[in-house]
Amino acid sequence: MTATDVHPLRELLPDGSVFDDADVLEAHRRDRATFCPAGTPSVLVRARSTEDVATTLRWAHENRVPVVPQGARSGLSGAANAIDGCILLSLEKMDAILEIDTEEQIAVVQPGVVNGVFAAKAGEHGLFYPPDPGSRSISTIGGNVATNAGGMCCVKYGVTGDFVRGLEVVLADGRVMRTGRRTAKGVAGYDLTRLIVGSEGTLGVVTEITVALRPATAQPLTAVAFFPTIADAARTVAGYLGEGYRPSVLEFMDAPTVHAVQRIADLGFPDGVAGMLLVQSDRGDAAPGDLAAFERVARSFAATEVVVADDPAEGELLMQARRLVGDAHEKLGLATLVDDVCVPRRRLVDLVEGLTPIAETYRVQVLCAGHAGDGNMHPVVAFDSSDPEESARAQQAFDAIMALGLRLGGTITGEHGVGHLKRRWLGEELDEAGLWSQRAIKNALDPRNILNPGRVLPDAG
Amino acid sequence: MTATDVHPLRELLPDGSVFDDADVLEAHRRDRATFCPAGTPSVLVRARSTEDVATTLRWAHENRVPVVPQGARSGLSGAANAIDGCILLSLEKMDAILEIDTEEQIAVVQPGVVNGVFAAKAGEHGLFYPPDPGSRSISTIGGNVATNAGGMCCVKYGVTGDFVRGLEVVLADGRVMRTGRRTAKGVAGYDLTRLIVGSEGTLGVVTEITVALRPATAQPLTAVAFFPTIADAARTVAGYLGEGYRPSVLEFMDAPTVHAVQRIADLGFPDGVAGMLLVQSDRGDAAPGDLAAFERVARSFAATEVVVADDPAEGELLMQARRLVGDAHEKLGLATLVDDVCVPRRRLVDLVEGLTPIAETYRVQVLCAGHAGDGNMHPVVAFDSSDPEESARAQQAFDAIMALGLRLGGTITGEHGVGHLKRRWLGEELDEAGLWSQRAIKNALDPRNILNPGRVLPDAG
Repeated sequence: MTATDVHPLRELLPDGSVFDDADVLEAHRRDRATFCPAGTPSVLVRARSTEDVATTLRWAHENRVPVVPQGARSGLSGAANAIDGCILLSLEKMDAILEIDTEEQIAVVQPGVVNGVFAAKAGEHGLFYPPDPGSRSISTIGGNVATNAGGMCCVKYGVTGDFVRGLEVVLADGRVMRTGRRTAKGVAGYDLTRLIVGSEGTLGVVTEITVALRPATAQPLTAVAFFPTIADAARTVAGYLGEGYRPSVLEFMDAPTVHAVQRIADLGFPDGVAGMLLVQSDRGDAAPGDLAAFERVARSFAATEVVVADDPAEGELLMQARRLVGDAHEKLGLATLVDDVCVPRRRLVDLVEGLTPIAETYRVQVLCAGHAGDGNMHPVVAFDSSDPEESARAQQAFDAIMALGLRLGGTITGEHGVGHLKRRWLGEELDEAGLWSQRAIKNALDPRNILNPGRVLPDAG
Repeated sequence: MTATDVHPLRELLPDGSVFDDADVLEAHRRDRATFCPAGTPSVLVRARSTEDVATTLRWAHENRVPVVPQGARSGLSGAANAIDGCILLSLEKMDAILEIDTEEQIAVVQPGVVNGVFAAKAGEHGLFYPPDPGSRSISTIGGNVATNAGGMCCVKYGVTGDFVRGLEVVLADGRVMRTGRRTAKGVAGYDLTRLIVGSEGTLGVVTEITVALRPATAQPLTAVAFFPTIADAARTVAGYLGEGYRPSVLEFMDAPTVHAVQRIADLGFPDGVAGMLLVQSDRGDAAPGDLAAFERVARSFAATEVVVADDPAEGELLMQARRLVGDAHEKLGLATLVDDVCVPRRRLVDLVEGLTPIAETYRVQVLCAGHAGDGNMHPVVAFDSSDPEESARAQQAFDAIMALGLRLGGTITGEHGVGHLKRRWLGEELDEAGLWSQRAIKNALDPRNILNPGRVLPDAG
């Protein structure tokens, strides 16, 4: 198709939905993954209704054209990068909150609504939407569903999928399917809701989401503890949770990350520490006791300093430090590769200690922060991307971290997804029968392989 | 095959695994469903290892022989009933608790372990396995996984699937697949764990289950409230939960059920009530406040009497009343058809009030108890099964209850599964694209249709 042709979808979709200007397409070619190829799309469709999505997929199916669904393109695995000749199918304009039902404690939203916008609106109704990926101020619920996104609250409340009751999904051939239910429970047929959640746009395009909400919780109390070794911090995590405490946040930052954050916001953190833990309890009257127990456990593992915030505002300041980690890493002036391994809690110490030899072997910086309570760490490889040789070493270090996670009984991805970035590694994590099953399901639901082809599943053979 | 033939599986499996005595087969033909056909099996295999299961399925796949997996056969939907010529594949002897890891708060079990046995063992380690189907003293974890079983704790803690982290599954052709993970989180590939959970033996045979456990909770406090109308009880449920309380139990019993229980265990329940609610809070020091709030809400909806148990033992006695419901219904001297609809909480009142006209129309008794906090009710049609005409009316009443549940925005099954009993109704609940997707997945994973064929999915066309 040359630039002067009219794309056939223009005839089928409402005015103002189909874009093929080169600059628009260029601006939509990539998500936030590092080292993932992005092709040249043929067209961008901004869907405004389920019917727009169905029309697009019906045409794509008939014409065997690949479709890449996109939300806010804040993903970190390349799942939303363009494929040569593809239709970029943006759901961003389908951003309505259709219903918040306070009595049933559920809501119905379109996929394009931003997580933070929705959570705030639920809060106005006295309700709580826990899934809080680091990207929540920009990422969409649809994108969160596509990756089964996590966040800081997961340690107590679970991940996105734990809050999804039902979906409206457009299948590869344009047919519209409803999965799941509005009710608290339901076992009518296979759990297609959970199959679609986390499938990264490869099995269907989600056009409506019914989520469960919780009653608002008490304002959390916050504490931080500083440790002379990373091992002490990691053992505190396992020890505290092992005693039966269920904090609403339990985060880790290593020394280079603490220093990077200090550089952009002086929070008065002490020098000479190897790692820091940040903990919250939202159990109201029980919260002070929860934090006192945390202090006791932390000190038993050699914590040099434990600060319990006296009021929620001070606690919010400490949380802000954790939220600045991404920015702080970016401000190092280096390219970053963000990993996402998740290991059993008692192996946290081996994971975090294992990063030093990896950094030394591949001569790159490796910083680390993450959701310690879940064992879900985000080691960050920082490198000079203008140096091809260093870039290659960074990629090797990134791979070595995943290999370490698998050796420790963990997974290559706790919450970011496989996308393009880790598809080769999926074959390392799954066994042959598991890979076969995944491919069989993909082929059954998308026999022409038009939905985000080449993502998630590694090439066969 | 005549009785003197040696079944080919005898050559392939360990001694003492293969049974074809007529009395053994007869004793294993049925689960606890009413009105479900049971065929004549060719053989019973008692698997003692994953390898036994794999060998059995490999042979069945090669020879296109249907396989019906069985646990304790305590299911209520006919999913474990024999099919003519089938292999009954019993997992009951695979009943080991392989591991309880107190630090990670997970356990690994074989499918044949009885729920109550496992929960008690976890309790000895200070851990809590919440899923508590009414059958927990006899049903197996494997069966609970097959149906995604619920119970009384679900209102606060969720269903079986919420606690399953990973599975070992033997595929239809005998290959062994591991799904999921041991870690708290993981998004590597499609969520096959959740796809297998609730699939009632039609997609694979589960041979090992990794479950999440929780720290033990405080001894719960218990209260009961009696209401002059069912509507008042139902409104109390919606009102109490709508205020943000999260009871660990919130159960309903109607007057005929209360009377039936009184008949087998005099609990001193008052006369002249239309319905009763039973509530628990396990929040330790916060529990008395939770129950005081319940009393306030119940009285605002005209509760005639509210009893708060002063100590856990008295509370346990009240819980016992709820656990006796099944026995009490059986002791009516009638056959029973146990339904399992789940509706939005605010429609509970319409569901329970709608049972009276159904009972009148079809001239059968309809009693009702259930997990009110989840909107998951178990209306029980009681009838004289020696009267074919009354039996037919009972079946019609049973169907009318499902139709009512669907009209109220609910589902035909909250926790018992579809099995044979409700497969026709699955087509009423799911849309065409949903049914197509379910069939496509079944066909992809079991192309020869040997795994529990004819269960869950309605016949096409």
